Amino acid sequence: MNKEILIFGHKNPDTDTICSAIVKQILNEKSGKDTCKAVRLGNVNKETQYVLDYVEIEAPELLEHVDEGQEVILVDHNEFNQSVDGIDNAKVLEVIDHHRISNFETAEPLYYTAKPYGCTSTILYGEFKEKDIPIDKKEATLMASAIISDTLLLKSPTTTEYDKKALENLSNIAGIDLEKYGLDMLKAGTDLDDFSEEELLNLDAKKFEKDGVTCVIAQVNTVSIPEVLKREEKLKEAMQDEIKNENLDVCILAITDILNSDSELIVLGERTDVIEKSHHLEDDKVFLKGVVSRKKQLLPMVENNI
Amino acid sequence: MNKEILIFGHKNPDTDTICSAIVKQILNEKSGKDTCKAVRLGNVNKETQYVLDYVEIEAPELLEHVDEGQEVILVDHNEFNQSVDGIDNAKVLEVIDHHRISNFETAEPLYYTAKPYGCTSTILYGEFKEKDIPIDKKEATLMASAIISDTLLLKSPTTTEYDKKALENLSNIAGIDLEKYGLDMLKAGTDLDDFSEEELLNLDAKKFEKDGVTCVIAQVNTVSIPEVLKREEKLKEAMQDEIKNENLDVCILAITDILNSDSELIVLGERTDVIEKSHHLEDDKVFLKGVVSRKKQLLPMVENNI
Repeated sequence: MNKEILIFGHKNPDTDTICSAIVKQILNEKSGKDTCKAVRLGNVNKETQYVLDYVEIEAPELLEHVDEGQEVILVDHNEFNQSVDGIDNAKVLEVIDHHRISNFETAEPLYYTAKPYGCTSTILYGEFKEKDIPIDKKEATLMASAIISDTLLLKSPTTTEYDKKALENLSNIAGIDLEKYGLDMLKAGTDLDDFSEEELLNLDAKKFEKDGVTCVIAQVNTVSIPEVLKREEKLKEAMQDEIKNENLDVCILAITDILNSDSELIVLGERTDVIEKSHHLEDDKVFLKGVVSRKKQLLPMVENNI
Repeated sequence: MNKEILIFGHKNPDTDTICSAIVKQILNEKSGKDTCKAVRLGNVNKETQYVLDYVEIEAPELLEHVDEGQEVILVDHNEFNQSVDGIDNAKVLEVIDHHRISNFETAEPLYYTAKPYGCTSTILYGEFKEKDIPIDKKEATLMASAIISDTLLLKSPTTTEYDKKALENLSNIAGIDLEKYGLDMLKAGTDLDDFSEEELLNLDAKKFEKDGVTCVIAQVNTVSIPEVLKREEKLKEAMQDEIKNENLDVCILAITDILNSDSELIVLGERTDVIEKSHHLEDDKVFLKGVVSRKKQLLPMVENNI
């Protein structure tokens, strides 16, 4: 067993999950707490790699599973099915998160800080301020990048006033030109050439069930929807495979244009009515103006239509 | 549906649950937040009534159930089985608690503040300090009373440095003589004459299950264990009834001497070995020196012996 306390975000790590784990380690070090170590539960995506290269640090070590009794701190998630293998028998000392609470329980009292903000790093920023701990350029860049990623440069409807204020202060400390750095970073994440269609579908997919209807909503970011749709037929094949293999009632792929804040959906399966009750599908697709957030826009619509 | 946000602690309310609900309402008012109202889920016990009389305020209104969609703030608990009827369909906006997290889930992100302190009011005290909100004499007395109650005047092993420091500051603001006020308050809660044996058993009882063994650990505070043991035979009858009616494998009553910080246990049922593996029972009873905490002392021993 690892003697250090391990800090990590969710599987299929995104920029908030990786950056918040690294920053939480720094925050604890600066607060004089027990030694702890940021790790990751999966591959670093291209957007996150852009950030790590910018601040010139290595990605955290990969963690495959935790032993019984291992002390851990969770960031950017709480649901055990999104966490590391073995989490049920680990000892969760602390959680910092901005999601709903579900599929989570502990045997002992713990520290738990959740706030309904757009990003975990916005909560961490608040902890630096509260404890009056100075924020270096590196930490500021990591937290700013996490906020840019989770809020799509403050354009997502998940964005709160706290995220805006944090990002403003953090980008000043980091000395970055928000629009330029932000777009460069987001664009780095939209380079999808290296991925197979199956991989694309799994880059950022969330599965859920309501009233017996099993649904996956996957999302990819792009600067050009037509560019992604060149692979439409193969993407549909991959979605059909997913439907068969995972016994899904419906599979939705949201291709999100981060420059214009719109999404094109591909919708397949027996229960395409979860979208069709609200929007007409043509050739299994529909273009949704102003829709970028799975959590705040797509999920409520789909759940309403089940 | 109640338009105001409702704030409440657990069923079988104790002093921390009632005082923390009242103080959280005051804290939100002073922070300029939405209107909210402290309520209670059961009868006010004598210890708590002593506190309310001392600060000259009325007990919060009784709440029997909540309607679907009712906005609520939970203090001093999170488990739905300890909460109000209808909680599954309420909207939990915030939780402030010092217990483990279990049997709890939300559909939406929320504010959640848990810290492994001895008392919920210690966490609330920290929020006043953090937000730089002044603490009046009344709030200070309510929070100090909650800490005295949950930590048995700082003698319980659940007590942390945070509780000690908070109680020191709060009793100064409240202008109370800690030893005198604390003992008077605790003693007020030990007047058990009005209660039937069945009621005594249910004043503060926690039920749990491990590996198929169903167990109740009830606790009553007293200044004289022999005084309570005058009712031993009738208490045992009530415990046997409870075992039959609730299908328990073991029922434990801890009679806790708050002056000397010891407990006498009465242990009945098929699985008295959960205690007997550690201690010899004589006439179904054992005296445990220095044992006052169910959470930190009794529960771990029982779980270990299952």
